[in-house]
Amino acid sequence: MSVVDVKDGAPQSWFFEGVEKLMEIWFSSSAPDGPKKGANLIERWKWENILTHVHCKILDEMKHQDQTAYILSESSLFVSRERIILKTCGTTLCLQALPFIIQLVQDECGFDTVADFFYSRKNFIKPDNQPHPYKTFQDETVYLDTILSESASYCLGRMNRDCWYLYTLNHPENTSLIGVNQPDQTLEILMTNLSVESMQKFTRCDEKGNVRNAAKFTEDIGISDILPGSKINSILFDPCGYSMNGLLDKNQYWTIHVTLEPEFSYVSFETNVIMKDYKELIGKVLNLFQPQVVSMTLFANHVSKNKVHKSFYIKVPGYKRLDRQVAQLQDYSLWYSQLKKEIKNNGV
Amino acid sequence: MSVVDVKDGAPQSWFFEGVEKLMEIWFSSSAPDGPKKGANLIERWKWENILTHVHCKILDEMKHQDQTAYILSESSLFVSRERIILKTCGTTLCLQALPFIIQLVQDECGFDTVADFFYSRKNFIKPDNQPHPYKTFQDETVYLDTILSESASYCLGRMNRDCWYLYTLNHPENTSLIGVNQPDQTLEILMTNLSVESMQKFTRCDEKGNVRNAAKFTEDIGISDILPGSKINSILFDPCGYSMNGLLDKNQYWTIHVTLEPEFSYVSFETNVIMKDYKELIGKVLNLFQPQVVSMTLFANHVSKNKVHKSFYIKVPGYKRLDRQVAQLQDYSLWYSQLKKEIKNNGV
Repeated sequence: MSVVDVKDGAPQSWFFEGVEKLMEIWFSSSAPDGPKKGANLIERWKWENILTHVHCKILDEMKHQDQTAYILSESSLFVSRERIILKTCGTTLCLQALPFIIQLVQDECGFDTVADFFYSRKNFIKPDNQPHPYKTFQDETVYLDTILSESASYCLGRMNRDCWYLYTLNHPENTSLIGVNQPDQTLEILMTNLSVESMQKFTRCDEKGNVRNAAKFTEDIGISDILPGSKINSILFDPCGYSMNGLLDKNQYWTIHVTLEPEFSYVSFETNVIMKDYKELIGKVLNLFQPQVVSMTLFANHVSKNKVHKSFYIKVPGYKRLDRQVAQLQDYSLWYSQLKKEIKNNGV
Repeated sequence: MSVVDVKDGAPQSWFFEGVEKLMEIWFSSSAPDGPKKGANLIERWKWENILTHVHCKILDEMKHQDQTAYILSESSLFVSRERIILKTCGTTLCLQALPFIIQLVQDECGFDTVADFFYSRKNFIKPDNQPHPYKTFQDETVYLDTILSESASYCLGRMNRDCWYLYTLNHPENTSLIGVNQPDQTLEILMTNLSVESMQKFTRCDEKGNVRNAAKFTEDIGISDILPGSKINSILFDPCGYSMNGLLDKNQYWTIHVTLEPEFSYVSFETNVIMKDYKELIGKVLNLFQPQVVSMTLFANHVSKNKVHKSFYIKVPGYKRLDRQVAQLQDYSLWYSQLKKEIKNNGV
């Protein structure tokens, strides 16, 4: 490791936690004529104010139909009519935004109910580097329980190795305001131990020292081809690292974030695109980034066309399954799979 | 609560943790002609010595074919040729027996390999009452990792409500000594918030103050009918509480433990009986004990006839499903389900 940081007199190796905290909030309104406006019409500076509590900034934005996608200094924010997705990496304070978001959408749009809520993340590489309450998922659960009520939290995968945590709501009763009554599904592919060859391209400057154009880079490297026809906004960080947001019709989005340092390489892919079968999409993503270890989650609600149980049996060529789990929650089904790259006979 | 205990000057309500720590160990031998003898032939006093480390005692024993079942002051011990099951409740130190068991079966029988290992339990009602390392499952995992290697630990159900923890081995490679190569399955029904009416019968003396005969009680109350044809050993504790062990051919066992105090009522049912469909058995058990809340787990290895996936869809009349999960581990599949008694329209 070439970059060192001196803290308290002792040299500390440079480290960045690529693993994101991911919060998805759905709102509804009890007003007879519904909300005053969609959350996507809230002005940018109001989100910037909220993000000061998270310790991150808006770097760029893109609009498409009823969605606004912001690239943040640490990951992404997606705002649509009734859904907010805040995904932040590093040591940011993602959850601290929650009370301010609830207040903002109430004041601006008249959303008075959190219809559904999901907070999820993979286990951190270095949990002790995180500020409170992010050191343990138990602490995050306690923190969220001070804001929301009737929660259910889960751990999928191996608690003492790679795992994926989820905090969601356990609705006490069925009311028309509660739950997401439109098809909703989220696929996440969280990749670690990536191929150095794939990763070394994700730098601001090319081999000759020229600053790369992020949009052209996104096309050249093949990311645009993952979901063709998308409106894309991307950024290359200085000296290295990459983020992109993609928007499609019907409130569909996708997002990729790359941390390339070999000691803590991490790439996340997330989307809500509607597909009956994600096999081809998963293959494209894994082929591009060549990770050694992959955690995948697929979330689909009861009105989604995607049947999580079918995905349970997806075989990914070149990868060995370490774990797979299916959980049936109140309105959602959830699939988790942990894969490891197969070592070929010649040891490569 | 009528019974109080004074500790550190402050009155403490009487409490007993019925939730058991359950350890199942399978052994194999690398000797060309196999083990010298089965673990079931180890003398009783040697187990009694080991149980001093656990802080419990043998109260009674029963033999059937290659199995010996001991009723303990806190739950049960089953010893067969190559499998040891130690299940202990209260504040006992179940895991502390592990190094002594490994040594004993090596010295006595020539078993030199832990072929497979499972430690599981429901979340404790009062974890802070437990001695180290039982206060958290993370601590139990760390403790077991000092004895065993290459582990995988899981949490099924809701981490912040009712859940079920499992620690098992993640075999680094396939050798003929590793894993269980015979059909193996375990069904557990863990019941809380039991019907006071069902529970009040589990006392040493009947309404007239006469000491009950445990064997007759086991028949009269209908427990014998759960798995007819079993050899049964049962005990009624003074003043209340009940334990039974049942043995059947082909290494099959079942066991029930009852903690009846309404403030912390808990009943566990566990068996490895081979059945294609456990629906009728589950119905019999729930009908007998009438619990409000039920956690069920079904574990089956790849050579078991029982297909865990089919059980995923079991509907239990009168109960509402809160959670269900399926996990596919290395050699085993695991099903978890959390049920709650449905409240009828008339509020009963």
